Amino acid sequence: MSATVHHLGRDSAPSLEPIMSLVASDMNQVNSVILDRMQSEIPLIPELAGHLIAGGGKRMRPMLTLAAAKLIGYAGTRHFKLAAAVEFIHTATLLHDDVVDGSDLRRGKAAANLIFGNPATVLVGDFLFSRAFELMVEDGSLKVLKILSNASAVIAEGEVNQLTAQRKIDTSEDRYLDIIGAKTAALFAAASRISAVVAECDEEVELALDSYGRNLGIAFQLVDDAIDYSSDRETMGKDAGDDFREGKVTLPVILAYARGSEEDRKFWKDAIIGHKSSDEDLGRATGLLRSTGAIDDTMSRARHYGQRAIDALGIFPSGKAREAMTEAVEFAISRAY
Amino acid sequence: MSATVHHLGRDSAPSLEPIMSLVASDMNQVNSVILDRMQSEIPLIPELAGHLIAGGGKRMRPMLTLAAAKLIGYAGTRHFKLAAAVEFIHTATLLHDDVVDGSDLRRGKAAANLIFGNPATVLVGDFLFSRAFELMVEDGSLKVLKILSNASAVIAEGEVNQLTAQRKIDTSEDRYLDIIGAKTAALFAAASRISAVVAECDEEVELALDSYGRNLGIAFQLVDDAIDYSSDRETMGKDAGDDFREGKVTLPVILAYARGSEEDRKFWKDAIIGHKSSDEDLGRATGLLRSTGAIDDTMSRARHYGQRAIDALGIFPSGKAREAMTEAVEFAISRAY
Repeated sequence: MSATVHHLGRDSAPSLEPIMSLVASDMNQVNSVILDRMQSEIPLIPELAGHLIAGGGKRMRPMLTLAAAKLIGYAGTRHFKLAAAVEFIHTATLLHDDVVDGSDLRRGKAAANLIFGNPATVLVGDFLFSRAFELMVEDGSLKVLKILSNASAVIAEGEVNQLTAQRKIDTSEDRYLDIIGAKTAALFAAASRISAVVAECDEEVELALDSYGRNLGIAFQLVDDAIDYSSDRETMGKDAGDDFREGKVTLPVILAYARGSEEDRKFWKDAIIGHKSSDEDLGRATGLLRSTGAIDDTMSRARHYGQRAIDALGIFPSGKAREAMTEAVEFAISRAY
Repeated sequence: MSATVHHLGRDSAPSLEPIMSLVASDMNQVNSVILDRMQSEIPLIPELAGHLIAGGGKRMRPMLTLAAAKLIGYAGTRHFKLAAAVEFIHTATLLHDDVVDGSDLRRGKAAANLIFGNPATVLVGDFLFSRAFELMVEDGSLKVLKILSNASAVIAEGEVNQLTAQRKIDTSEDRYLDIIGAKTAALFAAASRISAVVAECDEEVELALDSYGRNLGIAFQLVDDAIDYSSDRETMGKDAGDDFREGKVTLPVILAYARGSEEDRKFWKDAIIGHKSSDEDLGRATGLLRSTGAIDDTMSRARHYGQRAIDALGIFPSGKAREAMTEAVEFAISRAY
């Protein structure tokens, strides 16, 4: 599943290391803003927010903002605050997701709602979301505010759309792509784009970065959905089969259902409405996903979007930033599953 | 409890009618924006939002925005969108409150979370919140964005503060005032103030309107807290004693606890941690609230803030708008309890 590695003439497996090095010193600035602005006189707020924010996570979205700034040669500092705003929006949606999904684990730790309860988790999410807008207002770009308020509305719509599709085996691939385009890719796109706004680049540059982030986001989510059926608590930070047990109709399931026999389809129908959620059922599901090629083809779709992300960088001069951003995509689509 | 009525030389009880007439035609404009902008391709969003938005509610906050515009003679239309944004922020917090409190009733109807479930209720709240920011961005005033993003963060902080104080009988009056100043009064203040911003009034005008809204908000909440111990489903749209059963330490309880005998205090401690929540216990609580004068004095505190709201209007010329805004305060503090 690392077909694209040789393509780039690299010897080792692709990694996030180059993009992390590229932005390491800038990320320290972003982290200070994050730590500074998650504070509040109400102690529960930094405590709960810190559980998630300090507790790991790759800071993928702020990383995109910072990498994009390097790519276009932006030498200012405005994007530090905006990258922190992006991370706050993301953290707010994760907190609300944990309440929505009734999650047990997040990033390998107990999910915030389990420790602090649903009420506090909802409200601290609201706080971080408001704080994100305060940061954007301080920066003062109405264009950035427009991009991120729109992305936020789209994310919420995508989450509701996903909720409505839950336990519906007849969800189409198109609808599924709409959902992940909204709930995941919209913020990747906005995070990549906003550096071009503060650097006052041409529209063409903005759109290329938007496309990079959006396609990377879709690829990223598709791989996550494939991994959900194969990985374990240690490597993924959550349990395998969570999507299955929650009746989430992700692309692997859509493909396996479309390609299955009558008997297989009956199994999927029962499983997705929640009548089959034992470990044995999960085993059968995983078997069907592999035998129908549903997992392989989900990965193949992911590579398609990954390649589009890489090609969107074509207008930029080659160099360390572009290489690192390219390898980040390669990494996303070559993760173990 | 209508001591201030004669003060104004009015014959009938104060009512919201004058302020509602004052803004009636403008409110139609705001309602169109609200109805237009709560739409989404995901049908569950307008369905759930409409349950609350179309389902009554006095639109107090947008009313303040519109009345303030009349008071200062603003002749533009920008405040229609902003008033809708304020109502969206308010609706989002109500939806999240219903999840946080596990409410059964809201505005006399089943609360959204009971009908649509917690997940959808959280997410549609997020959607409305994002949509509010989109409306503000369209208007384009960074100053308004600053006021309302700050108010939103303060509201969330106030809600978390309230959650932390829940079931804590030793909550002080000061802390309680901090809580309602944040969770209720901040949005009243912002709603009143933003018309002065779009009308480009002097800072003095902005601050007077902020003070009017803030003090009215505190008065309003104090009266609500008194009413919670006395009203019923028909007049209040929710059950009497909800605060009691949820262990909310509101001002009536703070005063009754401070003034109670050892035995009374033991009752309050047990009740607030949740060991006394029968109808009989509620009856005893209500008796203590009356015998200690806690309810009367909560109303008296409300009148204090109400009077400050009225006095904040002192810099404005007398006329229909100022009279209507004054009577709105009189109404708030004279509601039956």
